[in-house]
Amino acid sequence: MENMRLESYDEVAEILRECDNVTILTHKSPDGDCIGAGMGLCLYLRSLGKHANVVNSDGFPDRYDFLIGDYQPEEFEEKFVISVDISDTTLLGDELESYSGKIDLCIDHHGSNRFFAKKSYVDAGASAACLIIFELLEHMGADITLPIATNLYTGLATDTGCFKFQNTTPAAHRAAARMMEMGVDFEHINRKMFDIKSRSRVLCEQKLISDMRFFEDGQIGFMVVTNQVVSDYQIDRSELDAFAQIPLTIEGVRFGYTLKQQEDKPNLFKVSLRTTDADAAAICGEFGGGGHLRASGCTIEGKAREVIAKILEVTRKYL
Amino acid sequence: MENMRLESYDEVAEILRECDNVTILTHKSPDGDCIGAGMGLCLYLRSLGKHANVVNSDGFPDRYDFLIGDYQPEEFEEKFVISVDISDTTLLGDELESYSGKIDLCIDHHGSNRFFAKKSYVDAGASAACLIIFELLEHMGADITLPIATNLYTGLATDTGCFKFQNTTPAAHRAAARMMEMGVDFEHINRKMFDIKSRSRVLCEQKLISDMRFFEDGQIGFMVVTNQVVSDYQIDRSELDAFAQIPLTIEGVRFGYTLKQQEDKPNLFKVSLRTTDADAAAICGEFGGGGHLRASGCTIEGKAREVIAKILEVTRKYL
Repeated sequence: MENMRLESYDEVAEILRECDNVTILTHKSPDGDCIGAGMGLCLYLRSLGKHANVVNSDGFPDRYDFLIGDYQPEEFEEKFVISVDISDTTLLGDELESYSGKIDLCIDHHGSNRFFAKKSYVDAGASAACLIIFELLEHMGADITLPIATNLYTGLATDTGCFKFQNTTPAAHRAAARMMEMGVDFEHINRKMFDIKSRSRVLCEQKLISDMRFFEDGQIGFMVVTNQVVSDYQIDRSELDAFAQIPLTIEGVRFGYTLKQQEDKPNLFKVSLRTTDADAAAICGEFGGGGHLRASGCTIEGKAREVIAKILEVTRKYL
Repeated sequence: MENMRLESYDEVAEILRECDNVTILTHKSPDGDCIGAGMGLCLYLRSLGKHANVVNSDGFPDRYDFLIGDYQPEEFEEKFVISVDISDTTLLGDELESYSGKIDLCIDHHGSNRFFAKKSYVDAGASAACLIIFELLEHMGADITLPIATNLYTGLATDTGCFKFQNTTPAAHRAAARMMEMGVDFEHINRKMFDIKSRSRVLCEQKLISDMRFFEDGQIGFMVVTNQVVSDYQIDRSELDAFAQIPLTIEGVRFGYTLKQQEDKPNLFKVSLRTTDADAAAICGEFGGGGHLRASGCTIEGKAREVIAKILEVTRKYL
């Protein structure tokens, strides 16, 4: 049977009303959007008296503790599997790899979604997976509690760079207004997610920016996060995701690359690309990666200078 | 005759419909909100065939060129004076000082407003002066052109730290949604206002953070911007306003002070205070300054270490 694409919240709502004993999958290297969407959905299903858990290959980083709250996994016989904010089963990570092919419902906002689930609701125009879940719950007339709204606001804010990035929509702003009216402590969340940094993190960023390499009159910028730097400045690896935004903040940069050396494989770099106007998904696609139009990623083997050379060759076609 | 407080958009609308040959005053050290509100209002009045100009004691910094556009001052016999985003006539600056006592209409969002104008519309709950102007124009059924919306969005975004600060309201988000639907290029504006920095500015900020002084277990943080640093890193002084947000981004800081040495008076410091939970306006009030609950300012004489000592003595009462 071919995998089905769902077109309306009604169809998704019907499935959510009928399912029980649900495992919710989030993507490896979890971020605010997948954790917020997973936890928000889980709390909602539990509020209906259903059993539900949220799982992740890498565990949830400490900085999201305020979203996890007093959540504890439940024991039950799994009958239904939902993935949130996952565009491809390769993003499940090692621990959850075995779920590949067994996902009943996928809820996602990536245009690059591969429709791997039995049923998929994908809205590439949605700013965040959390926005889809929020609108869906409203559509279902759900009682959206403060913990649910807090989770969903956090994902919406983090995926839009606090309503700054190109993927921000009027619907995102309007949802944020309604979430605020539910009592979400947006100031605390945004300070925690965007502003507050340890002194060592600030100094680490300083070092990385000082060492950045620029090409093509400064239009292409590379920041290389080596394991050495991470260890020298005692940076928690979960903080590294935020570094991807840095190269594009330097005046003149149109292609901002962050190369993150993998902890266990020093000859492998996780590459993040942020662009001002070029198609980031297309560029990363040339290396087998993907993502959004202005924010994408891929993985490339080699020493840092070799990876940079490979990327430069491709990027110059997009100048 | 006592100065009048206006309570409704209807009352303000009637005044705007009747006035002509208008000078719009903005505050010294102009920011996105006063420029956006002033320009937005001016463009609207001109679109009705009225004469209007926007003036400022310090001129408009280059970084707001995209708001000024092809605006040119007009020649006319001034008949009406409006101030926007000004809480006190001391903020007019030297060039506009003579307008003190001659202001017909004040439109402002500062709780500390001194009602110096003949008529004042002050909404301390509004996130920005630009939000008041926007809602007012909508209320009047105005044709809000893209340049007007661009000005008003910019002020709304800059005064709320892009919807991050405590002063953000559901109304601010909903207005942003409507502005986006008018075609405002929010991504470009936010990149320009918040993200893009020259390399020298980034390095300057990192230097200032490295040199920060902390007291009371890191709850009180001071960043001192000396004329030497500004000159060493060739920072445009109009960029310095944004530095005030930095101290509060360091983990643990509840009182974030920025001391800006005055160019012409090395023994005078303009002090900005940002707080997480304390009353910033009350603290700055003790030094003859004021502002908002979480963002205020004052001016203190002395050498940097003396200014810090004076501030510490007062701040400890608010710990």
